[in-house]
Amino acid sequence: MGILKQADFDQRIANLREAARRNGLDAILVFSTESEPAQVRYFSDYWPSFETAAVLVPVEGESALIIGPESLTYATARTKIPNVIQLMDFRESSQPDYPGSKLPKWKDVVQRYKLGKIGVSGWYLFPYTMMTALMKAMGGAKNVVMADEMVRPLYMKKSAAEIRCLKAAAKASEAGFKAILDVIKPGMTESELCGIAAAAMTAAGAETIGYPIWCCSGPNSNQAISRPTLRKVKRGEIIHFSIGAKVEGYSASIGRPVVLGKCPEATRKFLQVGLDAANMTFDEMRAGRKSGEVAAKIHQFIKDKGYGDAILYGPCHGCGQMECEYPFLETSSQYTLEADMTFMQDMFLHRGAQGFRWEDGLLVKAKGPAQMLSSYGRKINILDR
Amino acid sequence: MGILKQADFDQRIANLREAARRNGLDAILVFSTESEPAQVRYFSDYWPSFETAAVLVPVEGESALIIGPESLTYATARTKIPNVIQLMDFRESSQPDYPGSKLPKWKDVVQRYKLGKIGVSGWYLFPYTMMTALMKAMGGAKNVVMADEMVRPLYMKKSAAEIRCLKAAAKASEAGFKAILDVIKPGMTESELCGIAAAAMTAAGAETIGYPIWCCSGPNSNQAISRPTLRKVKRGEIIHFSIGAKVEGYSASIGRPVVLGKCPEATRKFLQVGLDAANMTFDEMRAGRKSGEVAAKIHQFIKDKGYGDAILYGPCHGCGQMECEYPFLETSSQYTLEADMTFMQDMFLHRGAQGFRWEDGLLVKAKGPAQMLSSYGRKINILDR
Repeated sequence: MGILKQADFDQRIANLREAARRNGLDAILVFSTESEPAQVRYFSDYWPSFETAAVLVPVEGESALIIGPESLTYATARTKIPNVIQLMDFRESSQPDYPGSKLPKWKDVVQRYKLGKIGVSGWYLFPYTMMTALMKAMGGAKNVVMADEMVRPLYMKKSAAEIRCLKAAAKASEAGFKAILDVIKPGMTESELCGIAAAAMTAAGAETIGYPIWCCSGPNSNQAISRPTLRKVKRGEIIHFSIGAKVEGYSASIGRPVVLGKCPEATRKFLQVGLDAANMTFDEMRAGRKSGEVAAKIHQFIKDKGYGDAILYGPCHGCGQMECEYPFLETSSQYTLEADMTFMQDMFLHRGAQGFRWEDGLLVKAKGPAQMLSSYGRKINILDR
Repeated sequence: MGILKQADFDQRIANLREAARRNGLDAILVFSTESEPAQVRYFSDYWPSFETAAVLVPVEGESALIIGPESLTYATARTKIPNVIQLMDFRESSQPDYPGSKLPKWKDVVQRYKLGKIGVSGWYLFPYTMMTALMKAMGGAKNVVMADEMVRPLYMKKSAAEIRCLKAAAKASEAGFKAILDVIKPGMTESELCGIAAAAMTAAGAETIGYPIWCCSGPNSNQAISRPTLRKVKRGEIIHFSIGAKVEGYSASIGRPVVLGKCPEATRKFLQVGLDAANMTFDEMRAGRKSGEVAAKIHQFIKDKGYGDAILYGPCHGCGQMECEYPFLETSSQYTLEADMTFMQDMFLHRGAQGFRWEDGLLVKAKGPAQMLSSYGRKINILDR
């Protein structure tokens, strides 16, 4: 059982070790939190909750999973890196004391691994207090450098196993959206509908939700990032869903607008422009294309249709262990698309109080248009309820 | 609708302003993330997702909610602080570019509010990059101080409205556990059972889950902090649940072990010691008692029963907007219990491959034992399935 094997994780660690060596570092430390668990999970299969976590990969010596005081049994059961170190700095932010605890400190880690220069990935998440402690143990800020750009290339192209995980997550997400379509009716709350999706996704093999999923209805529909509320959905308004499942750490997402009862013609036209732009994205995302040019072309299409003011971002962002991971695909993007890169085609448009998202996973192929990883209900869903 | 009113948030802001003034600061900045949204929500009713957020409360001038580039419509719809500032530093960790964006910077905020000295709460979460940018804008590290201990006293005792929120969250959590008891049988996965609880809690009025809820079964049961897996639950093993709902930002939790089929006598005895210690906690948690003495007494009871080695922490931690918030209740704790403090009575015991949690909300009363905020299924649940 399980798609990813010990050998996958061993290879990832070997790749990271090589990246450290190539960049003249003694080690790379990747850091994760409860809401940004991707990097630590990528290298260890462990993902933190409440406490934080890191993976230390030295050029010489045994890699380590670093966790907080309360996560030992959890981490030991999950980690593909057998060597586990507990540090107090990784405790919960509510700062328990743990009287009697004799956990090691950063200086012990630095000494044990004889670290002269270290790279940190997850740089933008890394807490100030932990960084200053690490820098002090390392003998100064000059010995700690940002390593995000050394780590990102390792997972920008996905392996066959990773693509299987993403497809399984997409399939579970489709089950979540189907469960919503089966039961949605006026008077149900946004939160209730998200709960129904969560249950359907886990019943379909998801570990859990891939991110804090949401439903936005009526005046809430113009929210690109959101959280569900107790608002009751109504007829004639846009009700849009951003739902996604997580499978072996890989997060999918489905973005769909739904209208109950009659759909005003102006709304239908707005939704259709978004869907056309979203569909066009799959045709444009081809290996060899410049990323920024694809974004510009999609934006131009929307502008030509008269909705340029409705664009917030997009039309794509990377996906994998985070529902939204590096790289974004924006008009300013410089990189070239390559086969086996995965994205979420994510088209969010909003004007005034109305907005909606079309989103599905996208796999860049060696030839031809991109593959769509989920498609269930990818149409303007107007339901007579 | 809604328990908390604008006036509640206005009062909280006023209290924080007074704390800033009392401590000789020009402002206090509270910081939150997707997985630690509590402080920002406490003051603004907004809670971040994907991006981060902060609330700036100056001694002089208008308070501000600070958010990232993508959260404007979401934040505007939620915030009780009408003045919203967007800063690029609050963007997603995947670091989109937002070509053409002209958002202000920290120095603009510092100049606008004429900040000479600022306190930061959420100090242990605050990212290194953001802190160095803030310190630079403030003219040096000496002008930025930790404010967590100035903010915590504001919410250690709960108002009547907050207690209503916690009770509503506890009630929704009970609905989640009831849904599990209704359907659990051998062969269901840990993740599936958590999804069922999520759906039942949101149907019962929860906004969403209060934290990343989990089920731990069999060899996973010794995990104090965990995440659900696709492991299928079996007869005769400990299957324990940590589930909780969120209502208006307040998070409850219920911890319960369940055994399907026959329960081995040694297991039953172990579960009973935990339940007895958990029940005793409610009788000990009285206004006027020293916190550390209560913890010591509960630990001594467990030691006397021969399970001292099974203690990991506890027997309580603060609760409110975070399922686990300051203060912990440990043998080293020095504070005195006061009426209207709320805790989770959280007793986790583990020995070898077996572990379990008993947990329910606890409200310290002016007189007599503490009030239990949830009780459904608080017994050794042995189900003939």
